[in-house]
Amino acid sequence: MQLQLRSSSSASALFSAVKVKPPSSPPVRVKALFTKNPGSGTLKNSNSNTNPNPMASNPRWAQKTVTLPPLRRGCHLITHKIVKEIAQDLSEFKCGLAHLFLLHTSASLTINENYDSDVRDDTETFLNKIVPEGRSAPWKHTLEGPDDMPAHIKSSMFGCTLTIPITDGQLNMGTWQGIWLCEHRDAPTPRKVVITLNGI
Amino acid sequence: MQLQLRSSSSASALFSAVKVKPPSSPPVRVKALFTKNPGSGTLKNSNSNTNPNPMASNPRWAQKTVTLPPLRRGCHLITHKIVKEIAQDLSEFKCGLAHLFLLHTSASLTINENYDSDVRDDTETFLNKIVPEGRSAPWKHTLEGPDDMPAHIKSSMFGCTLTIPITDGQLNMGTWQGIWLCEHRDAPTPRKVVITLNGI
Amino acid sequence: MQLQLRSSSSASALFSAVKVKPPSSPPVRVKALFTKNPGSGTLKNSNSNTNPNPMASNPRWAQKTVTLPPLRRGCHLITHKIVKEIAQDLSEFKCGLAHLFLLHTSASLTINENYDSDVRDDTETFLNKIVPEGRSAPWKHTLEGPDDMPAHIKSSMFGCTLTIPITDGQLNMGTWQGIWLCEHRDAPTPRKVVITLNGI
Repeated sequence: MQLQLRSSSSASALFSAVKVKPPSSPPVRVKALFTKNPGSGTLKNSNSNTNPNPMASNPRWAQKTVTLPPLRRGCHLITHKIVKEIAQDLSEFKCGLAHLFLLHTSASLTINENYDSDVRDDTETFLNKIVPEGRSAPWKHTLEGPDDMPAHIKSSMFGCTLTIPITDGQLNMGTWQGIWLCEHRDAPTPRKVVITLNGI
Repeated sequence: MQLQLRSSSSASALFSAVKVKPPSSPPVRVKALFTKNPGSGTLKNSNSNTNPNPMASNPRWAQKTVTLPPLRRGCHLITHKIVKEIAQDLSEFKCGLAHLFLLHTSASLTINENYDSDVRDDTETFLNKIVPEGRSAPWKHTLEGPDDMPAHIKSSMFGCTLTIPITDGQLNMGTWQGIWLCEHRDAPTPRKVVITLNGI
Repeated sequence: MQLQLRSSSSASALFSAVKVKPPSSPPVRVKALFTKNPGSGTLKNSNSNTNPNPMASNPRWAQKTVTLPPLRRGCHLITHKIVKEIAQDLSEFKCGLAHLFLLHTSASLTINENYDSDVRDDTETFLNKIVPEGRSAPWKHTLEGPDDMPAHIKSSMFGCTLTIPITDGQLNMGTWQGIWLCEHRDAPTPRKVVITLNGI
């Protein structure tokens, strides 16, 4: 996915050990885009970024359930896995929304930094610090293991659902943004995500 | 709603006291589904799950504001109440999204465990532990009561909006997932939710 | 935006010092609305709130990237700025959804109280209390400054994406709800938001 590509200047071998990144993000590709109103013959378009292809103006839907392989407890970058599953369909949308819904209550989906794995490790550290686990924890729900109730809480903190804009056939995320799956259970299990694409 | 039904083996009278649930979720019903592109005559369909009904391919919208009765402070399972309000319209969507938007800033909507009420109680325990309340709390905003500022914070932690996929006329959630309304105020009040359905 | 207007009785000069607000929200304008199914000739409409304008039944999409000016660290009400950018297009949607996506990983978008700035200050106080920063913090990711890793965590806690219903040409939010941009970095920078409107 192009948004995750780094230029050689920002991630050269010289800097790989200290993992710096530029203080400001490069300019975003997207411009205002107002799309054809199908059936009306008029063009809702407040600037010059028109859509000349009438085929692209037909609303369409695509939905797919993806199974992600088991991942260890912690935060994981899954942008590539998600995009790989939907790339062909994504490319046909000029403008739209991609909706991800995790079918579980002990893991979560979030958008965060896509470059330094330390950010994912530190986020896991935070979650474990903020949600008590083990004998000192005040939970009533303990039958499924000491990590289960904390996992439910973390799932609601970060959420199980994401909606990402689609622009010109791609997920329109910021340069440093990626999709994370946060696995909150100790025992890795496959996780299912329902992906719904909607747009023109 | 079917996804919340339990087989007698997983929730028999014998186990009702200890509230066990199976360690792994049963397989999810949903398969990849790529829907007709209205007006183009072509079928966007990467597998065999076609939609033979051309009527179902017309994009449609439905929107409704539902008022939930007052609930005591804490986390509440409201899946049935929500589905009951939209069931008839939901059944006409082959593929789509259901969007819920809570019109308040001192309560929240989240997706979490639908079976053991202890999970909801423990989540309320967590929220109260993490957000200080009363004389020791550092809040400036106290005129509406000691529970008001904590309620606002909890509302942003869990959020006031959810989007859930629709598949074959039903909310497509995981076996153990349910919709929770978390009431963060001491004084129960009716809560309004705008429900928007969109799909084919 | 009308939802943020206050009547003189609730925010008169007499009360401006103590910032009271009415204990209960006024009734919400929205009624159930079921919209025309384009192309089918049938009307999905469970009550009397029909849409007499056939033009409004054509699904349409609009997408725009908005750049917000730099804001100091803390929580900021941005409803007016967002609505100003999309007002003209918004007015053409009878029913739909407005999706906001922040293209950054060290700030967040949330819905919360739109009236008392103390609520925003207290929320910032909470975030700083809950996420350790500085020498005592356990983070590995520190190269971009002591406020960077806390900013990433806060971004996932509140999220970078919102979906808000559109009803009768306006964002359909509760009386006290507003859109907040929470800036989690010390150094203010412009922030980009992709806004996608979809509806009829």
